[in-house]
Amino acid sequence: MANAMLLPVLLSFLILPFSAMALTQDFCVADLSCSDTPAGYPCKASVTAGDFYYHGLATAGNTTNLIKAAVTPAFVGQFPGVNGLGISAARLDIAVGGVVPLHTHPAASELLFVTEGTILAGFISSGANTPYTKTLYAGDIMVFPQGLLHYQYNGGSGPAVALVAFGGPNPGLQITDFALFANNLPSPVVEKVTFLDDATVKKLKSVLGGSG
Amino acid sequence: MANAMLLPVLLSFLILPFSAMALTQDFCVADLSCSDTPAGYPCKASVTAGDFYYHGLATAGNTTNLIKAAVTPAFVGQFPGVNGLGISAARLDIAVGGVVPLHTHPAASELLFVTEGTILAGFISSGANTPYTKTLYAGDIMVFPQGLLHYQYNGGSGPAVALVAFGGPNPGLQITDFALFANNLPSPVVEKVTFLDDATVKKLKSVLGGSG
Amino acid sequence: MANAMLLPVLLSFLILPFSAMALTQDFCVADLSCSDTPAGYPCKASVTAGDFYYHGLATAGNTTNLIKAAVTPAFVGQFPGVNGLGISAARLDIAVGGVVPLHTHPAASELLFVTEGTILAGFISSGANTPYTKTLYAGDIMVFPQGLLHYQYNGGSGPAVALVAFGGPNPGLQITDFALFANNLPSPVVEKVTFLDDATVKKLKSVLGGSG
Amino acid sequence: MANAMLLPVLLSFLILPFSAMALTQDFCVADLSCSDTPAGYPCKASVTAGDFYYHGLATAGNTTNLIKAAVTPAFVGQFPGVNGLGISAARLDIAVGGVVPLHTHPAASELLFVTEGTILAGFISSGANTPYTKTLYAGDIMVFPQGLLHYQYNGGSGPAVALVAFGGPNPGLQITDFALFANNLPSPVVEKVTFLDDATVKKLKSVLGGSG
Amino acid sequence: MANAMLLPVLLSFLILPFSAMALTQDFCVADLSCSDTPAGYPCKASVTAGDFYYHGLATAGNTTNLIKAAVTPAFVGQFPGVNGLGISAARLDIAVGGVVPLHTHPAASELLFVTEGTILAGFISSGANTPYTKTLYAGDIMVFPQGLLHYQYNGGSGPAVALVAFGGPNPGLQITDFALFANNLPSPVVEKVTFLDDATVKKLKSVLGGSG
Amino acid sequence: MANAMLLPVLLSFLILPFSAMALTQDFCVADLSCSDTPAGYPCKASVTAGDFYYHGLATAGNTTNLIKAAVTPAFVGQFPGVNGLGISAARLDIAVGGVVPLHTHPAASELLFVTEGTILAGFISSGANTPYTKTLYAGDIMVFPQGLLHYQYNGGSGPAVALVAFGGPNPGLQITDFALFANNLPSPVVEKVTFLDDATVKKLKSVLGGSG
Repeated sequence: MANAMLLPVLLSFLILPFSAMALTQDFCVADLSCSDTPAGYPCKASVTAGDFYYHGLATAGNTTNLIKAAVTPAFVGQFPGVNGLGISAARLDIAVGGVVPLHTHPAASELLFVTEGTILAGFISSGANTPYTKTLYAGDIMVFPQGLLHYQYNGGSGPAVALVAFGGPNPGLQITDFALFANNLPSPVVEKVTFLDDATVKKLKSVLGGSG
Repeated sequence: MANAMLLPVLLSFLILPFSAMALTQDFCVADLSCSDTPAGYPCKASVTAGDFYYHGLATAGNTTNLIKAAVTPAFVGQFPGVNGLGISAARLDIAVGGVVPLHTHPAASELLFVTEGTILAGFISSGANTPYTKTLYAGDIMVFPQGLLHYQYNGGSGPAVALVAFGGPNPGLQITDFALFANNLPSPVVEKVTFLDDATVKKLKSVLGGSG
Repeated sequence: MANAMLLPVLLSFLILPFSAMALTQDFCVADLSCSDTPAGYPCKASVTAGDFYYHGLATAGNTTNLIKAAVTPAFVGQFPGVNGLGISAARLDIAVGGVVPLHTHPAASELLFVTEGTILAGFISSGANTPYTKTLYAGDIMVFPQGLLHYQYNGGSGPAVALVAFGGPNPGLQITDFALFANNLPSPVVEKVTFLDDATVKKLKSVLGGSG
Repeated sequence: MANAMLLPVLLSFLILPFSAMALTQDFCVADLSCSDTPAGYPCKASVTAGDFYYHGLATAGNTTNLIKAAVTPAFVGQFPGVNGLGISAARLDIAVGGVVPLHTHPAASELLFVTEGTILAGFISSGANTPYTKTLYAGDIMVFPQGLLHYQYNGGSGPAVALVAFGGPNPGLQITDFALFANNLPSPVVEKVTFLDDATVKKLKSVLGGSG
Repeated sequence: MANAMLLPVLLSFLILPFSAMALTQDFCVADLSCSDTPAGYPCKASVTAGDFYYHGLATAGNTTNLIKAAVTPAFVGQFPGVNGLGISAARLDIAVGGVVPLHTHPAASELLFVTEGTILAGFISSGANTPYTKTLYAGDIMVFPQGLLHYQYNGGSGPAVALVAFGGPNPGLQITDFALFANNLPSPVVEKVTFLDDATVKKLKSVLGGSG
Repeated sequence: MANAMLLPVLLSFLILPFSAMALTQDFCVADLSCSDTPAGYPCKASVTAGDFYYHGLATAGNTTNLIKAAVTPAFVGQFPGVNGLGISAARLDIAVGGVVPLHTHPAASELLFVTEGTILAGFISSGANTPYTKTLYAGDIMVFPQGLLHYQYNGGSGPAVALVAFGGPNPGLQITDFALFANNLPSPVVEKVTFLDDATVKKLKSVLGGSG
């Protein structure tokens, strides 16, 4: 009773000095129409619950391709709500025999949850070139340190699905084969820096769409 | 003597290569007319000494309300000079019997200096739910770790005043009662997630201006 | 052919200068027997693939309790491989009618993947006390900003399961009801800082094991 | 009633999975007996409310010296509770005519609250060497950006007192005159790098206890 | 052969879902026409190899001045490619008898490579005012911690050249003599905060272009 | 004169309250005998000027090997003074025809100064797989963003030398060929994740010392 009388005044009191608190940065949903900054995108002015929600990982990626795998990102570009929050996500669908080829994420560590099937995964340390590999089943998790080469492939007899989280809103994805063979970096340069022979480089450039 | 002759040339020499140094970011006074970013507001172009000075904490807040307390912030929204500098401030005025209710600052730790009166303060750890409480007198300081629930109330027979610093320019302030009862979050949801009964929730929603 | 001759020398050459590179910090698996530091635990000396793998989320938590929910963490304390990597995980099992009560994570944002069932989830902003709520189905993801009050409960007719990632290795978990009622914080203090009445506080203290 | 029956089970349920949560790092009170690290001291094992409280700023520093000023720090070395929390404090007492000489804090920005008297304060930007100066009265605050030269002196007819907060637990303090004249850096080196003449350097070295 | 058939599909598959990846922030070349932010400049939209390359340090600075030294910066203002990358550079040319006077970099540590000649360098710690000095020859490196006073001068009989790297894109440069004497900070203030006498201050203000 | 009398007291006054300032962390020279932490090594207790100095880059690396190149690191393992300072260094010697093969630094961006000869260098972006390549001559600098694949090779008719700085004390070095071929990662796995054929993988494993 006493409270009932006291609190309306509290309300008017506390609300007022903090009306300027619309400025408080609880979150910063990306305004993708602005230029990015080193810390992420400028904040969108008007925000709704939908900005913190993403449906794009609910559907399996199309694995009817020859690597038999699909990577569906929910990075800041697809899911602007993660901007500034130090986290993002992706979904991996890997059909029988499929593979996510050797790659790095330059800007975040990765945590993988297997939700279906069997995944063979590994990363390689930089100092001693030691491979750390595991066979993962549904329910298992594995962590891949930022910037280190790693891979995942289906090691079972049915489809494999994994949910992936990254410790940053924009982890990046550099697939080694694409970096080498899917562009116009001249073949002699690729050969010089990888010790691959000319036939191998030209073949992979041809199939991956590279020139030079 | 020799110096007197040497230095004019030094001046012209050193000044010139660093004229581009108008770009040096010694500070970044917030341009509040721009969109915020995850690291703070873009920098204002033209800056004066007044941008690093704030008078708004010099006057006691009005405690002639029923919580008998006033919180006066000097966050980036009120004091744009702190943008990017990792610090901000506030003033607490708590009349006899007054209280700053249970709350958190999601984005910074707090350091409280008592300048007048007696304040009973405490925070609660997350792991073991241990309360850490202290009676503070003029001259005492206490630190409240980022994101943990805490409170302050007047424990003396005269007014209490405290100056507060935060380890970030925009610490935020989430008062638990307002988060639960001062909005349109439906009463059954509040009851479900707090174990409070319907009568309690409805009463507090009524007095704090909430609906649903 | 030429390469085959060239490379053995390359090997001996490049390996040697980097033998000191055993010092390279690709990762820092926590040595939980040491004292923590503000940046995480000291690094374990000898590391295997098993350190980057965790099986503890594979099994459903036991929801045969009255909140009908279980939270299974894979924070640095359970999964030392995430130390220093800016990420960690947990599993939520929520039976029909179950709830993860109102809580915050003081030290990281949360990203939730629903893998089974229907979850009603929401968080509340600090400035305007605005609730952001969503009904989530299998495949949906939602992000909860660091330090803000939020909750999840089962909104469907079957069990709900979610995988959760955090943008930090040790996010913390502060459940509001436990912080208030599961310790020896005196009832008059709780009442003073929450505006709850004495009967409500005493009842919740009694059922949650608190005293005072 | 129903809640009263439900909750004891909730308690046993939720407490158990988080017993390992004694590891949660809500805070990290410095164990000053250990070696420091780049992120701060290792955490003390057993913590009480007293660790988050400091009484050392309650008493005025002794200004019966010739600079008529005293700086009393509450950095991590004096107040271990601020370790890892991104904040610390100090107290300034400046008698009539007193001065805190030109100095920098290499590791944090400073926020000054004047609580008594009149303080003339200023800092100098690095690019354009622009001085930003203010006369501050009781209740005024001013912010000094990290690493920039600044000073404070009493500009009034009575004693001046200020409380100071830093956006880091160990801000450092480099007083220019002491860096130049209170050590064994040879006078010719000091003269070479400052353009001061030999007599000035030798005089200041003599009074400040330097040699060389 | 099999690969040759498999890969075209891989290409179309993997390229497509990442077309939005043009958003990936591998780098963030500064758009200097925008306002800076606390984390650096907004990113330029269109980038070429030239943005990551800088020729401005190839030419010796002009040391035919009376300090017989030149500092040529490659900070973000001159070399926008370093924006957001945590690194920048400069070149030092110091003729016989030349000196880079006492200064600090408020925003980064410095690493100096001597490429020609002999440099006497030193920095002074803040706590104990201890000088750390070294005579450096071609090939030697020395590191200067962020924010601490330091200097370099030619200690040999021929010209000295050094390349300098900073652990930040915009380290700043505050030369103590310029901060004190090259502006309009009134002489009595300078004297008050440095203990220099009026004649010394006025002389240096005169030669360095200051007034007051 | 007045100063000469005032200052001795200043000395005793100011020195005393800061005797505890031996704790001030101006720097944190690595104690390599301790376990590393996510923020770097614990600090060495006793420090001299020699800790901030390194002579190991003064001598050319031995390029009389078949890659005709040598990388000499001055990371925290070799140069403990850089611990916690956000910077480190290396020296590159590349004889005619020599190459530093394709590699990444997972933990820092790189800034390269060419001091002698001609270096062809490039990095590849992750999103669009765009190569950014440059021919660099003595005096030129180039920056390579953190975690992205890059290479350097001698493009001239004489030896090439470069000094390299990194925006972190322990950048790591992952040479793609060594990660793939210099360990016991089974050939079928390497083939699966790279699309290289069995003969190529086995040949490179053989020459680089790998097995499996």
